[in-house]
Amino acid sequence: MIPVPKDFLFAATAAGFKKADKLDLGLVLSKRPALAAGVFTTNKFQAAPVLLCKERLAATRTARMLLANSGQANACTGEEGLVNARVACELAAKACKIDADEVLPASTGVIGNQLKLDKWREAMPELKKSLGVAGPMEFARSIMTTDTFPKLAWASLEVDGHQVRLLGMAKGSGMIAPNMATMLGFVLCDADVEPDSWQEMLKTCADASFNRVTVDGDTSTNDCILALANGASKVRISGREANAALRDALCEMLQALAYMIVQDAEGGTKVARITVSGAKSDADADLAARAVGNSPLVKTALFGQDPNWGRIVCAVGRSGAEFDPDQVTLALGDVVIFEKGRPADGDLDGVLAPLMRKQDIDIRVSLGKGPGRATLLASDLSRDYVTINADYRS
Amino acid sequence: MIPVPKDFLFAATAAGFKKADKLDLGLVLSKRPALAAGVFTTNKFQAAPVLLCKERLAATRTARMLLANSGQANACTGEEGLVNARVACELAAKACKIDADEVLPASTGVIGNQLKLDKWREAMPELKKSLGVAGPMEFARSIMTTDTFPKLAWASLEVDGHQVRLLGMAKGSGMIAPNMATMLGFVLCDADVEPDSWQEMLKTCADASFNRVTVDGDTSTNDCILALANGASKVRISGREANAALRDALCEMLQALAYMIVQDAEGGTKVARITVSGAKSDADADLAARAVGNSPLVKTALFGQDPNWGRIVCAVGRSGAEFDPDQVTLALGDVVIFEKGRPADGDLDGVLAPLMRKQDIDIRVSLGKGPGRATLLASDLSRDYVTINADYRS
Repeated sequence: MIPVPKDFLFAATAAGFKKADKLDLGLVLSKRPALAAGVFTTNKFQAAPVLLCKERLAATRTARMLLANSGQANACTGEEGLVNARVACELAAKACKIDADEVLPASTGVIGNQLKLDKWREAMPELKKSLGVAGPMEFARSIMTTDTFPKLAWASLEVDGHQVRLLGMAKGSGMIAPNMATMLGFVLCDADVEPDSWQEMLKTCADASFNRVTVDGDTSTNDCILALANGASKVRISGREANAALRDALCEMLQALAYMIVQDAEGGTKVARITVSGAKSDADADLAARAVGNSPLVKTALFGQDPNWGRIVCAVGRSGAEFDPDQVTLALGDVVIFEKGRPADGDLDGVLAPLMRKQDIDIRVSLGKGPGRATLLASDLSRDYVTINADYRS
Repeated sequence: MIPVPKDFLFAATAAGFKKADKLDLGLVLSKRPALAAGVFTTNKFQAAPVLLCKERLAATRTARMLLANSGQANACTGEEGLVNARVACELAAKACKIDADEVLPASTGVIGNQLKLDKWREAMPELKKSLGVAGPMEFARSIMTTDTFPKLAWASLEVDGHQVRLLGMAKGSGMIAPNMATMLGFVLCDADVEPDSWQEMLKTCADASFNRVTVDGDTSTNDCILALANGASKVRISGREANAALRDALCEMLQALAYMIVQDAEGGTKVARITVSGAKSDADADLAARAVGNSPLVKTALFGQDPNWGRIVCAVGRSGAEFDPDQVTLALGDVVIFEKGRPADGDLDGVLAPLMRKQDIDIRVSLGKGPGRATLLASDLSRDYVTINADYRS
């Protein structure tokens, strides 16, 4: 049984945006106005629901509903797409008897198609009927696209002897990259949080979780994480200590979801944890980690369980990070294979073989230059990734 | 019959670096000292032969021999690798009775392994025997790795009624990316060219050809283009007009080779010509073109012959180029599918289907911002790319 923060209700239905009988429309309703925060894609083309959320969060800091659909991204759809997103919010608001301005929408799916509003209208009675019957699992399923499993994580913390609950749900297995890829994330919390803290906390934790994973280096038009804190637990989070405790719990929960996203990468079989240390700066470490994590040659070697470390070193070399090649050391797990610019002695392939068979591969690069550090989770690149994405629309 | 510039001899043999009986060691010998120019990888890890060529070109501007091997990259091999590269040059120089300092070496293959000098030694008698018997086709074959066909192009021009010949040979089908990917290119010319012009011409033409293609966004440790002009035609290139004529012929020849590299991309089935216009600057146009050309989602859609234009627009949106999304127009061939931020009316998939079946796909993005412009040739991403690279070492 998933522990649900107080006073949140879920609904989900099959509206027919995807295959028949697949859940593709869901919502979360807070029984009371909730403090809302959001983090959005950095792509220049921002989907209509992203634009709408940003507009609403700029006007007010509270919301009642998270409304999500899969199958249609409503991105690159121009003014008509924006109008349609508003209509979709109105339909769901009306069904739940709240104001349309209290709805934060999120969409995922094929870019460029307009929302099928007739299907939205037809789906409303069933959606309403499921409210309070469906749970977070159904909601998490309704936002899946090429995901192979629903992604949920939760946390709780005690503040002055009272319990606060956090629940996170996410989707996304392709188009995952630096700075918010096609990824929807939803966070529910029943604490009473200060408005500025909530937004700041979400941003910090998103940077330490969803922004530290990569599947294919593509970032999408629709990414967002929306977070509602409705105060239903009557626990007020104030002061440095309580805020830090909530932030830590939120970070850990989002990191668990981010891991699942890489684990469920399209066609993925590996989760590589790339740690770059000894860089001139954190930014340089990040450059190197992303060059490795996004390199198709590194990713295919991971898929092939081939400890082809030359490709890792090569990716670091072209990353743009500053360092002296003669000071670079590379280890897979605890096995140092390249030290101060030279291959380690001996044939290490035998030692590396069992490490390469695991799901989790630990890649450690030390640049020997400074204190800069970064970690990134990356998927591998398989034939199935190609198959999934070559045939996505058909 | 391939027209060969005067006074160049070729040799090639199977030294056993790769599979038995595969040509993997070759050389070009100029009967007279030739003016030499080179362009090299920007990767921080530079292979031993690259370091050696740079050292030699810094010390002198003439060379007699281009020496190339496949199967072993001699990259990330430390001081020992550098010593081995020198020994390899000495062996070949001795066999051809020239000075070791007159040899420019180039290697391609697996990173991290030391050269097998015993095999080099054993191969010398056969290599020497083939000198003058082998032609450019055999040399071009000897530098192939995952290439499926040898890459040659040639050109000739008349200067004051006399003929000058150019011959280019290249390899490379993976690790092809911005700024010199794993790619070896060799240019021979029998004109008498001014030293500064020759190097400058090579750089200009490399920028307009090999640096305008991408296969997988990875750049290698070993890339180089080496060019020899031996003056054997007795035609002196001097003055603006003659230099421009030679440069144009060289550019066109290198562009033909660059096209072949994309055409022969690992597992590739498509050559996308991405043209970005209307950018704020050429640099911005280049950012956008590379984001599209390196996007795994665009590349898999190309492989799937799917006109999934949303992915192209999305890649442009995250490229970092400056523009107003409402001013962006995208066309596949002559079919405008996204205009001023909105999808074009009608279901265009039917019109696009025959275009997507072709080998050459024309992607035109207009950002509506300024005069900036860039073109890039990109391959698609297929299951075979993954298979080739997952199993490369085994």
